Amino acid sequence: MDGEVGAERGRRVTIRDVAARAGVSKGAVSLAFNDRPGVSPATRDRIFAAARELGWAPHLSARSLSSSRVDTVGLAIARPARMLGLEPWFMEFVSGIESVLVERSCSLLLRLVRDVEEEIAVQQAWWRGRQVGGSILVDLRDGDPRVPALRRLGLPAVAAGHPSLAGGLTSVWTDDATAVGEAVRYLAALGHRRIARVGGAPGLGHSTVRTAAFEATLGELGLGAGRTVTTDFSGEEGARATRALLASGDRPTAIIYDNDIMAVAGLSVAAEMGLAVPADVSLLAWDDSQLCRLTHPTLSAMSHDVFGFGAEVARRLFDVLDRAEPRAHQAPTPALTPRASTAPPPRRAT
Amino acid sequence: MDGEVGAERGRRVTIRDVAARAGVSKGAVSLAFNDRPGVSPATRDRIFAAARELGWAPHLSARSLSSSRVDTVGLAIARPARMLGLEPWFMEFVSGIESVLVERSCSLLLRLVRDVEEEIAVQQAWWRGRQVGGSILVDLRDGDPRVPALRRLGLPAVAAGHPSLAGGLTSVWTDDATAVGEAVRYLAALGHRRIARVGGAPGLGHSTVRTAAFEATLGELGLGAGRTVTTDFSGEEGARATRALLASGDRPTAIIYDNDIMAVAGLSVAAEMGLAVPADVSLLAWDDSQLCRLTHPTLSAMSHDVFGFGAEVARRLFDVLDRAEPRAHQAPTPALTPRASTAPPPRRAT
Repeated sequence: MDGEVGAERGRRVTIRDVAARAGVSKGAVSLAFNDRPGVSPATRDRIFAAARELGWAPHLSARSLSSSRVDTVGLAIARPARMLGLEPWFMEFVSGIESVLVERSCSLLLRLVRDVEEEIAVQQAWWRGRQVGGSILVDLRDGDPRVPALRRLGLPAVAAGHPSLAGGLTSVWTDDATAVGEAVRYLAALGHRRIARVGGAPGLGHSTVRTAAFEATLGELGLGAGRTVTTDFSGEEGARATRALLASGDRPTAIIYDNDIMAVAGLSVAAEMGLAVPADVSLLAWDDSQLCRLTHPTLSAMSHDVFGFGAEVARRLFDVLDRAEPRAHQAPTPALTPRASTAPPPRRAT
Repeated sequence: MDGEVGAERGRRVTIRDVAARAGVSKGAVSLAFNDRPGVSPATRDRIFAAARELGWAPHLSARSLSSSRVDTVGLAIARPARMLGLEPWFMEFVSGIESVLVERSCSLLLRLVRDVEEEIAVQQAWWRGRQVGGSILVDLRDGDPRVPALRRLGLPAVAAGHPSLAGGLTSVWTDDATAVGEAVRYLAALGHRRIARVGGAPGLGHSTVRTAAFEATLGELGLGAGRTVTTDFSGEEGARATRALLASGDRPTAIIYDNDIMAVAGLSVAAEMGLAVPADVSLLAWDDSQLCRLTHPTLSAMSHDVFGFGAEVARRLFDVLDRAEPRAHQAPTPALTPRASTAPPPRRAT
């Protein structure tokens, strides 16, 4: 124990110190960390802040948080194993994290879980067993139960998601709402009036944000409600969604995809249905891994530096380990990269 | 300590037991495990075998090897972070591993390293610090120093690679030589006489095997030496290699790629150079992730179930943890899946 804990330097931090710092009883600290009633939300926040400042965690002697002493970072993912390999996003994200970890000789402890409840149990076991020094949360949901659970544990963490979902944890986020707005306005400026969207998995925070922004922007432009088909992010479901949209009576003249593998699938479906891209239908991808530059025609995309995003998340976790105040860090907003898959709609459709 | 160690059941296994089993002195066991001179290779192998059978490891009290008690498996990768996200193979492989780990509530400890020397240090730290119960070795090389290092540590491991590279460790391998032969014979049967190959990174065991098989099959068929351009497996280098091949004086009429992302890039380069696929040039991919079915034309490929391969590697690691004898397990050989990117060569070229 030689963490830099201000006045407490060199001394073991106890629950008493946390209680004193927060101006409450030891019992209140215990209640707060065990998620029991009897402590107001404001007091609970004060207790968590005090614990975080002192580097104290329940059930274990206090750990001196310091990035230089952390050799493992945790990442649990509640997605089916098969899905991991299907979406370039995930591997780009992990690669970005690893690019920072490798500089610090740090490992990534990766665990697939069935749901967030299992993830909470896993994070708890990791932290209590000293298997990780900090964790990265992904796929945040509304009212995500992992956030209060990690705060109770005192586990240093960064949420890869919108600050409104991060419940006071340090977060790294991209402004997807603005990016969706830009995508819709660009297609509308080209003359498109029937714009559809092939979205990702429902229930994820960023899906909700994107769908709301999609509908709001269409509304502002007087282009109706807009149709979003949800998928599991795979090429197969992207193909199915594209087929459904292009076979419908009021066929869209432009489709926005929530990732790039689905847009690649969309290109293939358009060819299979005898529709030219972009003459008959414009396709706009998201994320923009190397795939978008390898297709023919090349895919216009909302470019998002996923590798850089992963690296930023890892860097911010080390900030947290070095006792930086919780903050929301905004990563660059996905920006339009026009290529060959978007153009004005066919004349008969305008 | 309740490992099933035969006569020693229920008793703590010591260096003395290992020495007795191997018929040597305690000092010889110590020399062998510390990689010191004074022990013949044959004796060293006997000592390692005895230690493995008894579940004894140096520097730590013996661990009872049992898959049911292992909650973390290690995987170190000596590739640049950026490359991880670029190749579908890697993420499919990890997904397959995770599909088995998730059933056993096991985590994967993932670490990027600069080279195999760093990996040896990492594996040692993981094992001595009890951070992993076993490890998976990938990207095996000729005379790979990781193999003897892991055997000395007594770290249960599975090598994802050819048995000839695995030095007696349990291995899971695919018969790439046969698959390359099948690919070349198929293209030759279509009438191709100038067949080139866009290969992966030189120095990797499977690159060596594939290059040798490529040249041998061409030789048998009287089709000359064959040209292999090496790459880093990325789409960018796949595009560059394809451009170089298609711009050369004796342009090949068929190209075999060592993965699928490079074949997708090849399709794009052919279009950019005004060459029709397959009318002017046939392209044959490897691995065959969903990408090959999403391009237009779809890509013929040597289909390799990479997800299933990863799962098999993980299952065999649990066999090792349950004290199965070291074995070479052959995974299914990549098989030809003809699609729309291969056809007879243009008449003027035959």
